Amino acid sequence: MTNNSVTSATEDPVLTDKLQAYRQRHSDFLQIQLTAIDPVCPRLHDAMRYAVLLGGKRVRPFLVYAVGEMLGAEAKNLDGAAAAIECIHAYSLVHDDLPAMDDDDLRRGQATCHKAFDEATAILAGDALQSLAFELISRPLAGVSAVVQLNMVRTLAQAAGAQGMCAGQSLDLQATNRHVDLDTLERIHHYKTGALIEAAVELGLLLASEVATNARADQQSWLETSHHLRQWARLIGLAFQVQDDILDVIGDTQVLGKQQGADAEQQKSTYPALMGLASAQGYLTELAQKALHALDAIPYNTEVLAAFTHYLITRDR
Amino acid sequence: MTNNSVTSATEDPVLTDKLQAYRQRHSDFLQIQLTAIDPVCPRLHDAMRYAVLLGGKRVRPFLVYAVGEMLGAEAKNLDGAAAAIECIHAYSLVHDDLPAMDDDDLRRGQATCHKAFDEATAILAGDALQSLAFELISRPLAGVSAVVQLNMVRTLAQAAGAQGMCAGQSLDLQATNRHVDLDTLERIHHYKTGALIEAAVELGLLLASEVATNARADQQSWLETSHHLRQWARLIGLAFQVQDDILDVIGDTQVLGKQQGADAEQQKSTYPALMGLASAQGYLTELAQKALHALDAIPYNTEVLAAFTHYLITRDR
Repeated sequence: MTNNSVTSATEDPVLTDKLQAYRQRHSDFLQIQLTAIDPVCPRLHDAMRYAVLLGGKRVRPFLVYAVGEMLGAEAKNLDGAAAAIECIHAYSLVHDDLPAMDDDDLRRGQATCHKAFDEATAILAGDALQSLAFELISRPLAGVSAVVQLNMVRTLAQAAGAQGMCAGQSLDLQATNRHVDLDTLERIHHYKTGALIEAAVELGLLLASEVATNARADQQSWLETSHHLRQWARLIGLAFQVQDDILDVIGDTQVLGKQQGADAEQQKSTYPALMGLASAQGYLTELAQKALHALDAIPYNTEVLAAFTHYLITRDR
Repeated sequence: MTNNSVTSATEDPVLTDKLQAYRQRHSDFLQIQLTAIDPVCPRLHDAMRYAVLLGGKRVRPFLVYAVGEMLGAEAKNLDGAAAAIECIHAYSLVHDDLPAMDDDDLRRGQATCHKAFDEATAILAGDALQSLAFELISRPLAGVSAVVQLNMVRTLAQAAGAQGMCAGQSLDLQATNRHVDLDTLERIHHYKTGALIEAAVELGLLLASEVATNARADQQSWLETSHHLRQWARLIGLAFQVQDDILDVIGDTQVLGKQQGADAEQQKSTYPALMGLASAQGYLTELAQKALHALDAIPYNTEVLAAFTHYLITRDR
């Protein structure tokens, strides 16, 4: 158990090392998986690689690794789930950028997938990345029971679909050019961004569940840890989105890798738009404090997760 | 073991009953599943229902049920896999019909999903149907081990993605307005249509594998049955596509529920276009004969599968 407070927001060297190490591990793993695919259709294959290997913050893979390792899971058993959830995230960005959706030309400072290739290829690359996610998450792992793995598949499917991310994107599109209140905005983000962030934490929990429940007699303690981690996940999911909205107002296009002010231009409802910039920043701090408080109740070394909470709300991209 | 020949192509009453019964069972199951989903976003939910409940031949669910039941699996254990593979098929049609892909207004005699709703909703409904497929196929089943179910998830993911259906669709798009030879055409169809048809048969096999290997001491006989059924699946997958191409030439728009002559208009390479109508019809008969021959080698009652083979090559829609 670590006592975490929100006062220090300076970059944490432990976190920097972990972020770097997990990112590298994740990229290497994805690279190997994509190279191992027989490129039946090279153009489709290139578009998939383009969409998923281009970089990004890798927040969701980080969460799988950080939560899983903290709870005692082996990194090699976390690779598939981390890659799977990033494939879901990457496919959602490809489809989100399409002309019929957000119609974006720029993503992570590069041409969006349909600009670099074409619309049809981007649609299919997104589709194939979703399939790949379920292929990666269903590969047998030594030391993880098939029952747990099946549970992981279901967790990912639910978070990605009509009761998760897709619902959030659909709600978000319907809210464009329309005034929505704060409750509605929070509901949209809960599904659009939160569902997958919570799923990443849940996957880490699931992958460690057998190790943890074998190691400790106290089943009650495991249930409490799960509860507090899910609470943390929900809070950082929301904080992530609030900071995203704030960055659209105060961020730098070059650093962001996407157009600053795009939300305002598209008249999207955002936290700064609905509550003012200062209140949005206050709300962000409040969410982070609650998130850190949830970590305090967990009987593991939560240092990395606490540092990550700070990183999420102070990031500039 | 049944001795099957291709001479009688009249409608088989046993098959008619089975087709009807499986279709009904499948529709009821899908209806229940879609009703059980909390409609977070009603518009997205409506589009998903529209895309998957509108009807269609239900070829893939039929294969899961017919193969599974023939081999001794219980129908209640086949429902999830049958529904999952139909969700994948339905999503692929929704995306295939989009303006950036085939740009079709009519599907099964009704407005395509993006015409009935809008493009963004159609993209997201397709995405959410793919997620739903993996949710349905990963629900725990009594009497089926989690190891087998995980194998089913992988089978579906591989058949749907970059080494299956998506690759086929991408190859198909690239072949439009371009002359391709017969080998290339066969390769396109192997991925575009064949992969999912073969996966349907494979899912039936997997779901029956434990029943069958418990019931019979002879593991070798099971391997041979699997081999012949996969051969049959490959052949009917191809035959299905050849008949589709033939129907585009000789079919009736009203009966087909889609525009007759659309392939020719879009200058798509088809079997009749490449080899002439009569030769395509001869090739279809040859494929059916080989498929029936594969069934002859299977020590189960293959009557329904044989009748289905006839149905596939004589269907008018």
